[in-house]
Amino acid sequence: MKINNVCILGAGTLGSRVALQSALSGYKVRIYDIDPTALERSRKTMEKIILHLAKSSGLEESAGLNAIDLITFTDNATNAVMDADIINESVLEDIEVKNQVWELFGKIAPEKTIFTTNTSYLLPSMFADISGRPEKFCALHFHDVFYSKVVDIMPHPGTDANLIPILDSFGKSLEQVPVLVKKENPGYLFNSMLMAFIGAAGKLLTKEIGSIEDIDKSWMVNFHMPKGPFGILDNIGLDTAWHVTKSQPDLASQRFAALLKSYIDEGKLGEKTGEGFYKYPKPRYRDEDFLE
Amino acid sequence: MKINNVCILGAGTLGSRVALQSALSGYKVRIYDIDPTALERSRKTMEKIILHLAKSSGLEESAGLNAIDLITFTDNATNAVMDADIINESVLEDIEVKNQVWELFGKIAPEKTIFTTNTSYLLPSMFADISGRPEKFCALHFHDVFYSKVVDIMPHPGTDANLIPILDSFGKSLEQVPVLVKKENPGYLFNSMLMAFIGAAGKLLTKEIGSIEDIDKSWMVNFHMPKGPFGILDNIGLDTAWHVTKSQPDLASQRFAALLKSYIDEGKLGEKTGEGFYKYPKPRYRDEDFLE
Ligand SMILES: NC(=O)c1ccc[n+]([C@@H]2O[C@H](COP(=O)([O-])OP(=O)(O)OC[C@H]3O[C@@H](n4cnc5c(N)ncnc54)[C@H](O)[C@@H]3O)[C@@H](O)[C@H]2O)c1
Ligand SMILES: NC(=O)c1ccc[n+]([C@@H]2O[C@H](COP(=O)([O-])OP(=O)(O)OC[C@H]3O[C@@H](n4cnc5c(N)ncnc54)[C@H](O)[C@@H]3O)[C@@H](O)[C@H]2O)c1
Repeated sequence: MKINNVCILGAGTLGSRVALQSALSGYKVRIYDIDPTALERSRKTMEKIILHLAKSSGLEESAGLNAIDLITFTDNATNAVMDADIINESVLEDIEVKNQVWELFGKIAPEKTIFTTNTSYLLPSMFADISGRPEKFCALHFHDVFYSKVVDIMPHPGTDANLIPILDSFGKSLEQVPVLVKKENPGYLFNSMLMAFIGAAGKLLTKEIGSIEDIDKSWMVNFHMPKGPFGILDNIGLDTAWHVTKSQPDLASQRFAALLKSYIDEGKLGEKTGEGFYKYPKPRYRDEDFLE
Repeated sequence: MKINNVCILGAGTLGSRVALQSALSGYKVRIYDIDPTALERSRKTMEKIILHLAKSSGLEESAGLNAIDLITFTDNATNAVMDADIINESVLEDIEVKNQVWELFGKIAPEKTIFTTNTSYLLPSMFADISGRPEKFCALHFHDVFYSKVVDIMPHPGTDANLIPILDSFGKSLEQVPVLVKKENPGYLFNSMLMAFIGAAGKLLTKEIGSIEDIDKSWMVNFHMPKGPFGILDNIGLDTAWHVTKSQPDLASQRFAALLKSYIDEGKLGEKTGEGFYKYPKPRYRDEDFLE
């Protein structure tokens, strides 16, 4: 099966990025959102990314902007999915919203359309049935598309095995490294490991074994990385981390969730609000003398 | 208190490195081992490191080799500790051996000598009393000295607080980033986080959620790192990882420990035996097309 037409549901942070990369890779792209202002913002986000890529990678600015011009931005569901070979869904991380979206698109999508979801912590089996075509339903989970170029392919028990190589090729065509998550797992591969190491960092902090800065230094110096766990948390968003952490039953996670909540209650959600564990735009860990 | 004379106990992998960096930083260094062949090997190891540093960093080869010439290599304990301001102990990771060593050096070291241990997973409080000077006893734990330049300062409840700034300055003078581990914790800061993320990777593998290569790819691409958890495990040594993993009570750790044991039983300990999860010297994860 050859994929030509890509339909993206949800024109937020991730949907915009997957749509843009699809257009850059030569697919015909339609991106749908119920919120027309989200569609306007999406186009601007894409333009910013192109300007950034033109500077940082070899991308030609005009070619990038042309790719955006070929994308159809629409709040009309029927129009969006009209000729789609594949849907990649990036609407709000909310079971009810995703259920509504999949119920709708299950009805109006052409028979040929493959259904994929980007859900971060929910599972494809939660939406497979309501979509009406469980065998064509699979998670296809991007990370950030332009910096972290991994895409997780995670079938649910009812997914047709023939879908896997199609999604693998599609992922590669979008310049991603496809990895297979053989069984449903909240957090796929990377996020499971990420949350384990972040949880360990949280435990070191709540047990008062190390300070935020010393814990980050240990990670940064040993792994030669530009951020430690608390810098990474500021980037993920403390609200997102809290949602994941509070759902874990063990005491250490509960303690860390409570700590995250205390930051959230003060409006400190991380980079996006200007403060989390560090203050932005000049967090301490980026100072030249931090590792001295 | 000014540190001039450094005494290193144990001339193995780590002791040799700490001794060498101490000499390069201008300290007068004596390194002790019960095994004379270890002392010979140690000198050769140091020479290799100098040649490597001369190539990779700006170090002048002759200056480096001169620093080695100023080090005293000895199997005579009294001679080794004669004028020591500080001992940094790197003998075998074994409670009995460390107990013997600290009992001996507690008796023969000058009164002024500060006692520090490099133990990876044991705790300073286990040896503080037998050393006869618990208040002068602290963990000062290096990682690899030349590549991962972190040093953990971990007091036990009886450590004199005045020791901390002295060890902090000493660590900095050895070009390390000192971090404070405020309470005793097996694994300090970094190793706690490392083992948590490696444990999560092990769980993904034993639960057959992802393959070795896909799990490694996820980590490498998302964090732009040259190795994933299984490549890192090959570097740590599967035997070392097994010792830590089998001591954890949860089922996932037990399963992963059993998997590690099956590799160990086949002689696959990682890089040092030429095979672990990957084959060396050309592991798959270093292939140019691994991330395609
Ligand atoms: N942001 C990331 O880095 C990232 C990474 C991986 C996966 N994800 C997943 O992608 C999805 C979207 O995340 P995001 O960060 O882009 O969120 P976002 O809030 O930026 O965007 C969500 C978009 O969905 C739209 N939407 C809400 N209800 C809708 C409906 N009924 N029909 C159509 N559109 C609707 C909103 O208007 C909004 O534009 C989530 O499931 C998230 O878990 C996000
Ligand atoms: N290798 C590392 O990267 C590393 C990193 C951090 C901490 N450590 C810790 O450092 C210590 C040493 O580890 P290593 O990897 O260098 O081990 P190693 O096996 O390379 O060296 C240990 C040395 O101790 C000597 N020794 C044994 N009994 C002795 C005694 N009674 N008196 C004097 N010397 C004796 C041995 O002859 C050997 O040369 C361990 O506690 C380990 O946990 C190692």
